[in-house]
Amino acid sequence: MTENERKVTPISDLGEFGLIDHLTNKIKLRNSSTLLGVGDDAAILDFGDNEVVVTTDLLTEGIHFNLMYVPLKHLGYKSVVVNLSDVAAMNAIPKQITVSLAISSKFSVEALDELYEGIYLACEKYGVDLVGGDTTSSLTGLVISITAIGTAPKGKAVRRSGAKANDLICVTGDLGGAYMGLQLLERESKIYKDAPQIQPQLDGYNYILGRQLKPEARTDMQKVFDSLKVQPTSMIDISDGLSSELMHICKQSGTGAKIYEEKIPLDNETKAMAEELNINPLVAALNGGEDYELLFTVPLADHDKIRNHPDITVIGHMVSKEEGTHLITTGGSEIELTAQGWNPLKE
Amino acid sequence: MTENERKVTPISDLGEFGLIDHLTNKIKLRNSSTLLGVGDDAAILDFGDNEVVVTTDLLTEGIHFNLMYVPLKHLGYKSVVVNLSDVAAMNAIPKQITVSLAISSKFSVEALDELYEGIYLACEKYGVDLVGGDTTSSLTGLVISITAIGTAPKGKAVRRSGAKANDLICVTGDLGGAYMGLQLLERESKIYKDAPQIQPQLDGYNYILGRQLKPEARTDMQKVFDSLKVQPTSMIDISDGLSSELMHICKQSGTGAKIYEEKIPLDNETKAMAEELNINPLVAALNGGEDYELLFTVPLADHDKIRNHPDITVIGHMVSKEEGTHLITTGGSEIELTAQGWNPLKE
Repeated sequence: MTENERKVTPISDLGEFGLIDHLTNKIKLRNSSTLLGVGDDAAILDFGDNEVVVTTDLLTEGIHFNLMYVPLKHLGYKSVVVNLSDVAAMNAIPKQITVSLAISSKFSVEALDELYEGIYLACEKYGVDLVGGDTTSSLTGLVISITAIGTAPKGKAVRRSGAKANDLICVTGDLGGAYMGLQLLERESKIYKDAPQIQPQLDGYNYILGRQLKPEARTDMQKVFDSLKVQPTSMIDISDGLSSELMHICKQSGTGAKIYEEKIPLDNETKAMAEELNINPLVAALNGGEDYELLFTVPLADHDKIRNHPDITVIGHMVSKEEGTHLITTGGSEIELTAQGWNPLKE
Repeated sequence: MTENERKVTPISDLGEFGLIDHLTNKIKLRNSSTLLGVGDDAAILDFGDNEVVVTTDLLTEGIHFNLMYVPLKHLGYKSVVVNLSDVAAMNAIPKQITVSLAISSKFSVEALDELYEGIYLACEKYGVDLVGGDTTSSLTGLVISITAIGTAPKGKAVRRSGAKANDLICVTGDLGGAYMGLQLLERESKIYKDAPQIQPQLDGYNYILGRQLKPEARTDMQKVFDSLKVQPTSMIDISDGLSSELMHICKQSGTGAKIYEEKIPLDNETKAMAEELNINPLVAALNGGEDYELLFTVPLADHDKIRNHPDITVIGHMVSKEEGTHLITTGGSEIELTAQGWNPLKE
């Protein structure tokens, strides 16, 4: 930020090709599957015997991010991570990304450097190669389009459609934190707008802020499944909230599901912030989204393999389609989940 | 257009998932390398022994297209084609695309249907599978981000960097038509703005209008090279104008080049429109761009193999880096080409 205030180089100083050189000359290639990276009409890749997964996300200013309170470096990092999360949800290992940007004239070279710092940090952390992209103008805000490519040994990629009745429903990590982090940021941003002299009150909420601003993709789970000798029958990443993702799996697998309120993993900060803001933390978990944990199913027979893993929580089990998709509350009542998610505030 | 005026369904009537279903339920998969298409966290692909090329383009309203005079169906078609052109420039065969859209509320379901009609038409014509994407909101104009994936047998992909001194410089088709088509459209659009009652004068210029509005990618050339037993030493597609593309090849190959004004292929409509607008048609070829023809080099020894092919014109030859990159005019003078292209209007 202070760097940004000190020096502001207009993008026009570099020109299109100069800017691309400037942004891409720090690229390090890490994967043997990358034969040729940026600088040609296309990248050249060789995946050997593996199957390849491809996913893409488009993020637009004002819809997916607010530059008021999201630092550009975090934005760059998160933009990559949300795509790697989709690769992880296929039980694949991310290998390459392409990054396309549309930028308006309000952005300086230094601002783009910050954004790319986050992008490169994610590449380093996840061992992926930036192999291409497009840098162009926008008449208005920032647009980020990222495509991620990953590999899985033949037959190991996991779809949404393979769950069967009686399969166990599991999640990684804990849920609702990213949503509560967003609520906190929005509250402080509003206070700042009204009274800029007041310092934001973010102490004690590092975990949920991190969940919102610097989420991680569960690319580690592929190795966990491998070492536990578990092949999930279905999997999806939790970007829109547990409820909506579970509905996707049920729809594509042709099943119903039962999940239990008391089993849903919530962090203490998530609960504390929810209490402070008078929100049911379960809403954050079910409908909040952006946790980027994995929701997956395994055969009942695999229960012993997963039950003691610290990153995996069994939250319910699949049932027949006719039985529907329900949350069983701590009090014992059955509440039907809907595509839009269940909202207890409506009760 | 008339259809569009008759029925206007707001996108909110369908919702996000409904819209995605609506837009993707017509997808036909054509390639055996596509194991799983849209509808999961990622597509699953299997390329066997082939190398894979990946390229991506980001198009924004007001910068890359003007909805005033570009019909949405043409825009959809062209958005795909510009990416397939990059795949062709690698000597690879396009197999899959992903399509991401950011749309503002001014677009109706019917408008998106038109756009997708063009996208599906391109998929059909080029035999590619639409396997993924993202559909999201934009606070302002339309944003289209497309990634294309193609395959080439091991070692057959052609880079920009392999040209050697004495290699022949070749282009496919003819150049400058797309630029002259754009000039015509802009002239008529301006007249229409000033006096809407005047009908646009587009007769007799079908070829250059088509070059601008509905360009094609030279994916046919891969088979031509194969049948002629020619492996280009370098290749690039002509999206920014011959001059700029030739500079890219020279820079990455570490060579210079000599091309000859009299050899540059120009269509009669391009010449006629240029005369009408008092533009040197050579400027359109060198700096105009968007022709999506291929610029490539072959060893001198291959001259006999290519000389009689109707789609290939030899326009010059590579020289050493020290000799620079020049256009030899019909009058015999040597003019240095620059990264921005040569502009005789500046003389």
